Amino acid sequence: MDTRVKTQATLDLGAWMTGHLERIERSLENWVSGCAPNQQDHGAPAKLIDAMRYAVLDGGKRLRPLLVLAAWETVIAETGAQACGPGTEPYQAALRAACAVELIHAYSLVHDDMPCMDNDVLRRGKPTVHVQFGEASALLAGDALQALAFELLTPEVGIPLAQQGVLCRLLARAAGSAGMAGGQAIDLASVGVALNEAQLRQMHRLKTGALLQASVMMGAAFAEISESAQRALQDYGAAIGLAFQVVDDILDVTADSATLGKTAGKDASQDKPTYVSVLGLERSIAYAQELLEQALAALRQSGLRQTTALQGLANMVVRRSS
Amino acid sequence: MDTRVKTQATLDLGAWMTGHLERIERSLENWVSGCAPNQQDHGAPAKLIDAMRYAVLDGGKRLRPLLVLAAWETVIAETGAQACGPGTEPYQAALRAACAVELIHAYSLVHDDMPCMDNDVLRRGKPTVHVQFGEASALLAGDALQALAFELLTPEVGIPLAQQGVLCRLLARAAGSAGMAGGQAIDLASVGVALNEAQLRQMHRLKTGALLQASVMMGAAFAEISESAQRALQDYGAAIGLAFQVVDDILDVTADSATLGKTAGKDASQDKPTYVSVLGLERSIAYAQELLEQALAALRQSGLRQTTALQGLANMVVRRSS
Repeated sequence: MDTRVKTQATLDLGAWMTGHLERIERSLENWVSGCAPNQQDHGAPAKLIDAMRYAVLDGGKRLRPLLVLAAWETVIAETGAQACGPGTEPYQAALRAACAVELIHAYSLVHDDMPCMDNDVLRRGKPTVHVQFGEASALLAGDALQALAFELLTPEVGIPLAQQGVLCRLLARAAGSAGMAGGQAIDLASVGVALNEAQLRQMHRLKTGALLQASVMMGAAFAEISESAQRALQDYGAAIGLAFQVVDDILDVTADSATLGKTAGKDASQDKPTYVSVLGLERSIAYAQELLEQALAALRQSGLRQTTALQGLANMVVRRSS
Repeated sequence: MDTRVKTQATLDLGAWMTGHLERIERSLENWVSGCAPNQQDHGAPAKLIDAMRYAVLDGGKRLRPLLVLAAWETVIAETGAQACGPGTEPYQAALRAACAVELIHAYSLVHDDMPCMDNDVLRRGKPTVHVQFGEASALLAGDALQALAFELLTPEVGIPLAQQGVLCRLLARAAGSAGMAGGQAIDLASVGVALNEAQLRQMHRLKTGALLQASVMMGAAFAEISESAQRALQDYGAAIGLAFQVVDDILDVTADSATLGKTAGKDASQDKPTYVSVLGLERSIAYAQELLEQALAALRQSGLRQTTALQGLANMVVRRSS
């Protein structure tokens, strides 16, 4: 939250992120535009593709894809594999998984913003998809982005068949009624309702946490690691998943709309329960810090040797200002 | 369309269908309710699960799951495999694929009926999901059903890993912007627009045909068959996919709402292009018959030995009265 605090880890992270982010953006662009109507034997109408592109491109911190790639690097390092740079097939496979998670995240934002849900008009500083393209196109663009995520994970060539099913399972569970969609349903049912901390945690564990944790586990699915290392990464994912939401709630009251790129103060005005409303601002800030420490402790206890990027991303989640 | 015409094939089909339908219903019930909130470590709220159950259970002809199982039986027969009855693992794997397709179909109906899309209040003789549960729950139930479809295809045990990716790919492509969602987008853009027959065919090839064809190809994905047999099944799927929509358009003007279980005359009142509006009723009926013959010819030319159920389902698609 204090962007002036730059530890060594976050400084290193900047360099690490730059190359990955560029490839993530380029891949998302290619894959979403790969449905373009000027291609042979493909008939998706231009407006649908435009709405999908608008929803996915030119915005977003890409936290979930970065988590996939960071976890992937961590487990690949354990295998002693060399030369898994950007041009290699293993990297391209991980990049597909990274972008698939981002497509699910992007579709969820499109649907969440719709009038029957949060009815928001501003996202990443731009009009939301339904404002720009109409509600029907927003609905269909979200639906098509979810399908595209699973298509990305199941190429004829590019991800070993043995891993495709595992990746789809992790993503489907995190996106569905036991994950993101379920959390959003609890969120809707909680307007004006006083939740206790346990109920609030459960809501956010599903709504935001499940997909962030799945990002870590999808990256980790590309190599065999010990069960205890698996559990440690799960704990890491759970801690940053929750931390992300606590910080979101803090920023909703401390930041302005221009910084956030979305409507600030929205939760309070909609009478939604948040960490700030349940714990108060000061205890929420302390809780975010505690979750960061839990995440870093899980990495230390994992026995995994190369966790710098995962450490840096955990720091970024808690220290972000938007 | 003339239900009095019962050929030998359709009579045999009744017996074939009964057992499969019972298992399809029971499996859908189990899987959708498997997300029930009374289960441990699962927090999906009851209302979301109720909306999902309402959308999926107690209704529908289950044509797509039957196509999966019919195609599966056809290709399994080629391998000379014995004892693939209902209790066996291969049958259970095919049943998962069958139900996954139905979940995608069910989610698409929920979203299509919403006010921002077709704004329909009646489906299978009951209020539509958004009328019964509200728009937000309908949106989320549809989203969660799509995710559940891919979860069904990727169990830890139950479908060989080598097939999971292939099944997910077929389903994702058929559901996305190059399939169902794309077709629906063309449909929305076509209100009040005069389409020619080629444009109408393209719209329906995506909107309805892609998922029906994918049903056939997913069933066929469970065993190796020759490339020419694959192509024949693709042709069969394309023909019945189109026939289904032509018959739908015919029934929209010839049947009443009580028989259809949905609002009759809807297309004409919404000024949507249909086969009847483009070709006229008589030529539409002849075209449906022609497509049926194409489908049956493809089966004859496939070289596949056991195609009775696929023949019967093609007959059913064209001869149905609702």
